[in-house]
Amino acid sequence: MAMAFHTLAASRVRVGPLLPAAAAAPMSSSVAAHRYHHRRRFSAIVAAAPAAAPAAAPAEFDFDSYMTERSETVNRALDAAIPEGEPPAALHEAMRYSLLAGGKRVRPALCLAACGVVGGREEWALAPAAAVEMVHTMSLVHDDLPCMDDDDLRRGKPTCHIVYGEAIAVLTGDALLSQAFHHVANAGSYPPDVDSEKHPARVVRATFELARCIGSEGLVAGQVVDLAMTGASEVVPLERLEYIHLHKTAALLEASVVMGAIIGGGTDEQIERLRKYARSIGLLFQVVDDILDVTKSSEELGKTAGKDLASDKTTYPKLLGLEKSREFAEKLLSDAKEQLAGFDKEKAAPLLHLAYYIAHRQN
Amino acid sequence: MAMAFHTLAASRVRVGPLLPAAAAAPMSSSVAAHRYHHRRRFSAIVAAAPAAAPAAAPAEFDFDSYMTERSETVNRALDAAIPEGEPPAALHEAMRYSLLAGGKRVRPALCLAACGVVGGREEWALAPAAAVEMVHTMSLVHDDLPCMDDDDLRRGKPTCHIVYGEAIAVLTGDALLSQAFHHVANAGSYPPDVDSEKHPARVVRATFELARCIGSEGLVAGQVVDLAMTGASEVVPLERLEYIHLHKTAALLEASVVMGAIIGGGTDEQIERLRKYARSIGLLFQVVDDILDVTKSSEELGKTAGKDLASDKTTYPKLLGLEKSREFAEKLLSDAKEQLAGFDKEKAAPLLHLAYYIAHRQN
Repeated sequence: MAMAFHTLAASRVRVGPLLPAAAAAPMSSSVAAHRYHHRRRFSAIVAAAPAAAPAAAPAEFDFDSYMTERSETVNRALDAAIPEGEPPAALHEAMRYSLLAGGKRVRPALCLAACGVVGGREEWALAPAAAVEMVHTMSLVHDDLPCMDDDDLRRGKPTCHIVYGEAIAVLTGDALLSQAFHHVANAGSYPPDVDSEKHPARVVRATFELARCIGSEGLVAGQVVDLAMTGASEVVPLERLEYIHLHKTAALLEASVVMGAIIGGGTDEQIERLRKYARSIGLLFQVVDDILDVTKSSEELGKTAGKDLASDKTTYPKLLGLEKSREFAEKLLSDAKEQLAGFDKEKAAPLLHLAYYIAHRQN
Repeated sequence: MAMAFHTLAASRVRVGPLLPAAAAAPMSSSVAAHRYHHRRRFSAIVAAAPAAAPAAAPAEFDFDSYMTERSETVNRALDAAIPEGEPPAALHEAMRYSLLAGGKRVRPALCLAACGVVGGREEWALAPAAAVEMVHTMSLVHDDLPCMDDDDLRRGKPTCHIVYGEAIAVLTGDALLSQAFHHVANAGSYPPDVDSEKHPARVVRATFELARCIGSEGLVAGQVVDLAMTGASEVVPLERLEYIHLHKTAALLEASVVMGAIIGGGTDEQIERLRKYARSIGLLFQVVDDILDVTKSSEELGKTAGKDLASDKTTYPKLLGLEKSREFAEKLLSDAKEQLAGFDKEKAAPLLHLAYYIAHRQN
């Protein structure tokens, strides 16, 4: 089913290449490219982007390649972060099962792209990028529990508690959550060319943002209000629906973007503009999710479709109707774009295309 | 029932006062004493301790007063950290119910004392001290869940999931865990007289230690192996029992001490010595716990007694017998004391007495 804002498709946007193939500057840190195993390809590509790219012939921004590269890099970082087979093997297996189950790695990509848009090297933000995926996976594992949303299927596979049992699923979430902070705070998670003087304060600030988006101001708050709403016979007002989505979905997207911008050395003004961008695409993400739930099959989604309707959950389509929901999504996309206007067009290309992607995704 | 290492009782140890009443130096930061509401009493007492205390007449170290003051201060910090009544009210209520349910605040006291023993002002470590209590409470709330240890009683009160339901209990743990990192990373959690240049790197390092003690190298790993062991018909070897306790109990005590020492500006050598001290008292803590489980009533413990026996759980008394368990505890206490030998006697008094307390506690 075509979406109303398909007219804003990415094909309309032409920006210069993020990584001009011909005009690659010498790598700013050849050490960085070799320090971390599994990272060469990423390093070679990302480190090759000069701080101020020389003017290059305008070309399409290759969003698919950008996302493929980033998700491969992040997957390698995630793979390396959770040791396979080491004791306690059952826990590590469950963590890897949940964390490496696929997924589009949108949050890590946002984190890397935000680091780049403020002039940082994307690789600086690989640790927070991996961390936000760990936190995201934690929230999925816990939300899927029988005492919560009681979901059997996630990313097309049986959920963690179905495979490993409830106890291990609870503990897997806890371990992923702490692993996220472990990863961000670990000096070994960063390339050697970060600004050694400013870096620790940036890590502290990024840690603060990550922690804030999880608990009673973020994911958990959203899930608490969502649970209270599910099955309630009253009609949930739009305001409360927005509260849920801003907390349950947008908060972590916000942290992803803001952490990237902080680690990239963004100014306060840049960070706050990117925060607004993230809030718009965060809400957008959920509005699209609600639309997909009523317009797609389980097979297409890789998770149980029509679940919101079946559980009588309030969604945007239910409150506003499908057309108005799509108009709202279009408005959010436009708000997000507006916040990117002040940034260098080439450097902002990934974030712009991520916004389009979130608006137009089909699963 | 008298314990074998009662002969090592605190009354044998005489050290100078930590805070000589007559020789109080001018407060090193009068600003710090007023910046945080609820903290005046603590600030007035702790800040009054001069960096190098002038020789004072030897007197008993008043451990009870020390612990009362610290636990009051930490309780105020915890109370202030979780807003009462603010939405989502159910979550905040459950967090406060679990976090402010009493408890002896041994971990925060260790954190504060370790900050002091390396020459820091104890107040610098109030944020990590509060954080370790949050992490400890998180682990209790999750371990008590029906899918884990299925406990109804904790600190003499119904457990979180009994009062608020399983979903809220899972989310309460998640929120407490993230709140711990939020608290440590929040610049507002520290007095203004911390070394502004060195402080961020110390916070990053402390965050790393906290994160490491929770997941697959700490609490969670211990609980996973513990769960696998419960009800198993095989006799569990001592080695695995020690693995469980080192992870499930000692890791967080280690993080408490090490975080305090880091924030207090300890040298690497001091930090590693205190790490060894913490590992000894961490294992000691659990050996004593096992002994208390078979020698005390539920009423005395404030939790279900004899539970280990009833569930056929392997414990030190079961593996070694009661007397050998007590001898082992005595050895651990002696190891812990040894690590404190190189520190200033007065400054080390709180950590020394905390070790005695852990060895001799009756609940």
